[in-house]
Amino acid sequence: MNRTNPIGFFDSGIGGLTVVKSVSRLLPNENIIYFGDTARVPYGSKSNDTVIEYSIQAANFLLRKNVKLLVVACNTASAIALKELRRFLTIPVIGMIEPGAKMAAQTTKNNKIGVIGTRATINNKAYTNELQRLNSKLKIFDSPCPLFVPLAEEGWIKNKATELIAKEYLLPLKEKEIDTLIMGCTHYPILYEIIQKVVGKKVQLIDSGSPASYLVENYLSGRGLLNNSNQIGMSEFYVSDIPSKFKEVAEIFLGKKITHIHKVELEELTTE
Amino acid sequence: MNRTNPIGFFDSGIGGLTVVKSVSRLLPNENIIYFGDTARVPYGSKSNDTVIEYSIQAANFLLRKNVKLLVVACNTASAIALKELRRFLTIPVIGMIEPGAKMAAQTTKNNKIGVIGTRATINNKAYTNELQRLNSKLKIFDSPCPLFVPLAEEGWIKNKATELIAKEYLLPLKEKEIDTLIMGCTHYPILYEIIQKVVGKKVQLIDSGSPASYLVENYLSGRGLLNNSNQIGMSEFYVSDIPSKFKEVAEIFLGKKITHIHKVELEELTTE
Repeated sequence: MNRTNPIGFFDSGIGGLTVVKSVSRLLPNENIIYFGDTARVPYGSKSNDTVIEYSIQAANFLLRKNVKLLVVACNTASAIALKELRRFLTIPVIGMIEPGAKMAAQTTKNNKIGVIGTRATINNKAYTNELQRLNSKLKIFDSPCPLFVPLAEEGWIKNKATELIAKEYLLPLKEKEIDTLIMGCTHYPILYEIIQKVVGKKVQLIDSGSPASYLVENYLSGRGLLNNSNQIGMSEFYVSDIPSKFKEVAEIFLGKKITHIHKVELEELTTE
Repeated sequence: MNRTNPIGFFDSGIGGLTVVKSVSRLLPNENIIYFGDTARVPYGSKSNDTVIEYSIQAANFLLRKNVKLLVVACNTASAIALKELRRFLTIPVIGMIEPGAKMAAQTTKNNKIGVIGTRATINNKAYTNELQRLNSKLKIFDSPCPLFVPLAEEGWIKNKATELIAKEYLLPLKEKEIDTLIMGCTHYPILYEIIQKVVGKKVQLIDSGSPASYLVENYLSGRGLLNNSNQIGMSEFYVSDIPSKFKEVAEIFLGKKITHIHKVELEELTTE
């Protein structure tokens, strides 16, 4: 494997671009290939079997692009498909659960941690299990927030309705006196302000991008695979569908203009 | 083609079950085969090319089950893929747009009609074009309501947040003094009460199921294909994914217990 090979990322859609943003900020020289499965988004409301099947197809697509490391930039796929992906791939695979849980465990003072995510992620108990493995004294309170993804995708980030929905999901966690809240879905940072307002300023919010980017750096430097070029890395974006609002929403997520987006045909994913 | 052959229905997910319910009530002896593309739901936020590709795959699946008539029980697929389906199939194909538009045109007294649907359906102007073809004096006011599908799927049918969202979408239509509102998405009848409350009692709501069921009866009787058996018809349900809440939500939509659900592998859809 070569240092200049790209890092591969995949997500059910565009939420994972928040993770790309963190990695690009920390490691600006790395080349990046991103795949968003926008023709089949969302994953969070689908069955485990389907999420595993889609994840393996996404990983295979990126392997054919010679990625040196795979980042599963989707909490649902990380919660459900990570074991399968690690069994099946020979390159290192980084999920969102381990780094997010580790940062939360280091952050909490009162050992009470909240976790929010899609229904699939929460049902799977991936964060709860990882947190308790790290520290058996932690008390974990979780809540699925299935309406947060469509609200974020629609850009309803300051509306009264979003605040009411956030209260419904989050006040039960606040009542448990959590001091740390894991935003266990790559879409949720878009709703950061409302989430912080509802849980209160004393609660520390943990997103997936920042802790994952440090883990990416660790993995690559530990294996001598950091790209030591002096040039800013290239980014390529592949999606399985390009709906009308795609570019606009993707640029909000990434925080910059996207120039090259390629459409991948589903046949290319489903055939080996 | 035989009278006892089933009627085929497809939808992106389970919304189309509201149409099955109407048809079964009107024509209880008909055999029914339903396909819900739950592994790739929703269609309403995806591109036209993707919606057409998925619709043709769904139609092909149902053709292999020897259906005598195809009901596209999804407004998004009806708006975008109906022409392609009719070009490609030899059996009759019924969409949601024509019957719903016809009933609305017959219902309005002041010639002001509102249309709500997914972003794909509204962008496509399928209802607007059909209504103006029926009566060029009609004034049509439309609004995409992309958050209604996730709210319906989550069962948020009486919440204050849903009412706020409904007001955001619907008050601009109410201000135009519409007297008729087409619920141009098979999920929306689930939110009937809140929609009626927001637009006011004077506005007549039109759903897709009831007008489509009369058109199904017309087509079949006109072709001598009504099932004249004395027995209650059989219903078979096929889905591309069975997520955890599926049975529960499907039974709400259908208004009765579901006993037989089969999972269709995606390979079976994507290969001819």
